[in-house]
Amino acid sequence: MLLQPAGSDVMGCGAIGGACPAESPNDRREDASHVIDGRLIGQVIGLLLCALSAIMLIPAIVDAVAGNAEWRVFLGSALATGYLGTSLSFATRTERARAPSTRDAFLITTIAWIVVPGMAALPLWGHGLSYTDAYFESMSGMTTTGSTVMVGLDGMPPGILLWRALLNFIGGIGVVAMAIVLLPFLRIGGMQLFHAESSDKSEKIMPHAAQLVGRIFAVYAALTALCAVLFFLFGMTMLDAVCHAMAAVATGGFSTHDASFLYFKSATLDWICVVFMLAGALPFTSYVRMLGGDLVALARHPEVKGLLLLVSAVAAVMALWLSFELNVSFLTALRYTMFNVVSIVTTTGFMNADYVGWGPQVFGIFLVLTVIGGCSGSTAGAIKMLRFQILWLTMQNHLHRLLSPNRIMSRTYQGRPLTEDVMQSVMAFLTLYLGTIAVFTIALSAMGLDLVTALTATATAIGNVGPGLGPIIGPAGNFATLPDAAKWILSLAMMLGRLELFTVLVLLVPAFWR
Amino acid sequence: MLLQPAGSDVMGCGAIGGACPAESPNDRREDASHVIDGRLIGQVIGLLLCALSAIMLIPAIVDAVAGNAEWRVFLGSALATGYLGTSLSFATRTERARAPSTRDAFLITTIAWIVVPGMAALPLWGHGLSYTDAYFESMSGMTTTGSTVMVGLDGMPPGILLWRALLNFIGGIGVVAMAIVLLPFLRIGGMQLFHAESSDKSEKIMPHAAQLVGRIFAVYAALTALCAVLFFLFGMTMLDAVCHAMAAVATGGFSTHDASFLYFKSATLDWICVVFMLAGALPFTSYVRMLGGDLVALARHPEVKGLLLLVSAVAAVMALWLSFELNVSFLTALRYTMFNVVSIVTTTGFMNADYVGWGPQVFGIFLVLTVIGGCSGSTAGAIKMLRFQILWLTMQNHLHRLLSPNRIMSRTYQGRPLTEDVMQSVMAFLTLYLGTIAVFTIALSAMGLDLVTALTATATAIGNVGPGLGPIIGPAGNFATLPDAAKWILSLAMMLGRLELFTVLVLLVPAFWR
Repeated sequence: MLLQPAGSDVMGCGAIGGACPAESPNDRREDASHVIDGRLIGQVIGLLLCALSAIMLIPAIVDAVAGNAEWRVFLGSALATGYLGTSLSFATRTERARAPSTRDAFLITTIAWIVVPGMAALPLWGHGLSYTDAYFESMSGMTTTGSTVMVGLDGMPPGILLWRALLNFIGGIGVVAMAIVLLPFLRIGGMQLFHAESSDKSEKIMPHAAQLVGRIFAVYAALTALCAVLFFLFGMTMLDAVCHAMAAVATGGFSTHDASFLYFKSATLDWICVVFMLAGALPFTSYVRMLGGDLVALARHPEVKGLLLLVSAVAAVMALWLSFELNVSFLTALRYTMFNVVSIVTTTGFMNADYVGWGPQVFGIFLVLTVIGGCSGSTAGAIKMLRFQILWLTMQNHLHRLLSPNRIMSRTYQGRPLTEDVMQSVMAFLTLYLGTIAVFTIALSAMGLDLVTALTATATAIGNVGPGLGPIIGPAGNFATLPDAAKWILSLAMMLGRLELFTVLVLLVPAFWR
Repeated sequence: MLLQPAGSDVMGCGAIGGACPAESPNDRREDASHVIDGRLIGQVIGLLLCALSAIMLIPAIVDAVAGNAEWRVFLGSALATGYLGTSLSFATRTERARAPSTRDAFLITTIAWIVVPGMAALPLWGHGLSYTDAYFESMSGMTTTGSTVMVGLDGMPPGILLWRALLNFIGGIGVVAMAIVLLPFLRIGGMQLFHAESSDKSEKIMPHAAQLVGRIFAVYAALTALCAVLFFLFGMTMLDAVCHAMAAVATGGFSTHDASFLYFKSATLDWICVVFMLAGALPFTSYVRMLGGDLVALARHPEVKGLLLLVSAVAAVMALWLSFELNVSFLTALRYTMFNVVSIVTTTGFMNADYVGWGPQVFGIFLVLTVIGGCSGSTAGAIKMLRFQILWLTMQNHLHRLLSPNRIMSRTYQGRPLTEDVMQSVMAFLTLYLGTIAVFTIALSAMGLDLVTALTATATAIGNVGPGLGPIIGPAGNFATLPDAAKWILSLAMMLGRLELFTVLVLLVPAFWR
């Protein structure tokens, strides 16, 4: 989706990242010389809207076939979006196309993640939601958050349910493409480590970004299809299977039922879902490596090890406690703890039990799980394994330097040197992440939301997770009753979290506009 | 108090800090060569206990004069503490005294802050508290936190009330001495900036640490005396005036009344207290500079400006809101918002209104205020102004580097260069601070405390603030009803926060013991 601003030219600029010393005067000229180009922005946004318009025809067809009159809403939305998209493209077309700079990439990405959900909200608006609710739902879908303001999903026409699932699906692939192609180039939150990965000549798994994204899309679509088939085979309807598969692999979390996975009451479906939520939260470049013959690429990846270790350990400890507390077998308890822990850590947001009802004992751990997240370069949100692992090494480094200020330690991650630049980048990310949670919590709290709701709504939105804690927005709750202003604030939080905060924050630096 | 491990020899090792490039092989040898020396630890702890024993005689005399039989408890505690202290000193005395190393300083500081509150708890234990409660209260007093487990303060004998105030008083001066002499040397959380200050030859305000601490103690005692006189003149009893003055300047927060400052219902006393809570949260080296003739040292200090700006702005905005909400005048509202905002930000913990009753609107802001803290080198706890100001510059730096990776910016703070080392140190501190809150919140939550209580108890303990939020440990509440395990966990949190986390954490690094 967000391929255009970061095409093969961007990959060519690899030397700006962590791999090279980055002192070429050429780079500096490129960075500082030219002004922001409205044409380029128009071209990219126009193209994205045209693609969105085409995707809107899918639920239109489904509704038309199902004999539901709402196909007109989708057709109308598709026409409006397509018209806007083509107009933008034509109005901004140019002969002398140039490679996008870092600034262009920051600006285009941010604008795209504001405008595209705005148009994707049209069918929901047409369905009868207020535009605030429609925008919240659309942003929640495209950022693969999964928080919902819609009630009575079980009785809704197939088109609208499919559209919500499609928002998760296109959001998911957009996120992966952005994380693998764009963020390493933008050097946000330690992602420059992966820039080295893609541009390192010795490994050279992927010569071009377009080809890489193509393969990733193939993996993503194949995982979704496989998940849908398994869901269907083990008892879901066709629509439920397709929608839940899209929401699971995208780690989005939109369901077609108000009760989410609790509706199905099937241990088999729960465990299949656990597998595919995890699959969506693993680094997609490792899948591509596996296709290229490196069969243990996933198993060898430190983020994958960290993620699996974390969810297994937390789910096992909680299951032990829960089996005593509720007097059920360990395996029954494990089904519920594993499902919900995986759902939160992978930032999916499905639930198969109202874990808020398990008591205050689990609140602390679920709050912390909400900020953890899956692997980088996946559809998962939040802080992510990579950063915690780099942070662990940074803290070790710092402690050793407190003891022996003169000794210089060199640390590596996956065989690549952890430069000061990477460590500082990760700490800056973490600090900003937690600071942003503080600011948004104050804002929601000032609107009169109780502290648990304010804090967990913020954490779940910035982490693109889905459910919060407490009676209102807990796993069995809904965001519908929040005030409109809170919905806009949370929409902003979802967007900021999805763009890893700094993509948007740099736009506020005066130097950006000079 | 904690002078001994960091005498004038320590100041001589200045070059280890941020000022010099720190590459002398001499330093390395000193750091790595010798093993931990039990004798040195014994000497310092022994001396501290002897001093503590002498101070215990004050409430013994007061109780004896007041005709209260509890003077025996204080005398007994003084004898026990004095016996242990002198035994330790004699058992570990040595001819060949040597200068303490960085490691010694880390270890002695941590042991001192575990053992001294343990003995200071004896009179409280003798008063009838369980040892858990007595240790919690003693740790809360000496770390100048001010959370209490004691109910019915109004009817208690003067000795025990004075003892609690003395815990605040000696804790306060211990904290300032540690922050000014020891922490810059240990290079924790950006404090190496001030190491440069004390060792910089061109400024050279203080040739020796002992002399510096002597002057700081004079300022501290004078502020406390002035505060006590003003409290007495404007209506407090002598005992109340002395106790509240000690608790205010130490930013400790122990009161002699269950209702804290709400008991006095006096606007004048409230405003006097605001002034002295702020006075205790300002950098004490600036007072010493003022005595040396630099009359605007305080007014020029960026931390002072930041603190005053923050509390004024927050209190004013809240007063505006509160005057509408409760239909009172702006000035009346300001008296309450200013008092409680200053009390939380300076980490004192007095209250003159149950602000939890103002509604959920203030919960978010009070939660965030709890982690902010006063100026560095003061009696205040929490993260502190200095670190937020360095963080602000670090984030600016990071954002500029995201935009122009090749440009190197040099930033300064108070005219001193902000090295990568300082910036990384501050970010590491913040990350660990918030991570510790997360871990302790999970632990308290797992004991069944509700999330607001678990989170705010942790934040208030690590920040050495005092009150939390919610019905149990809110400003009108009390920590008495928490489970014993929670009290031990919170005692640990208070100690960790007071020692700026890293002082204790380095002891867990295997390399420390090699």
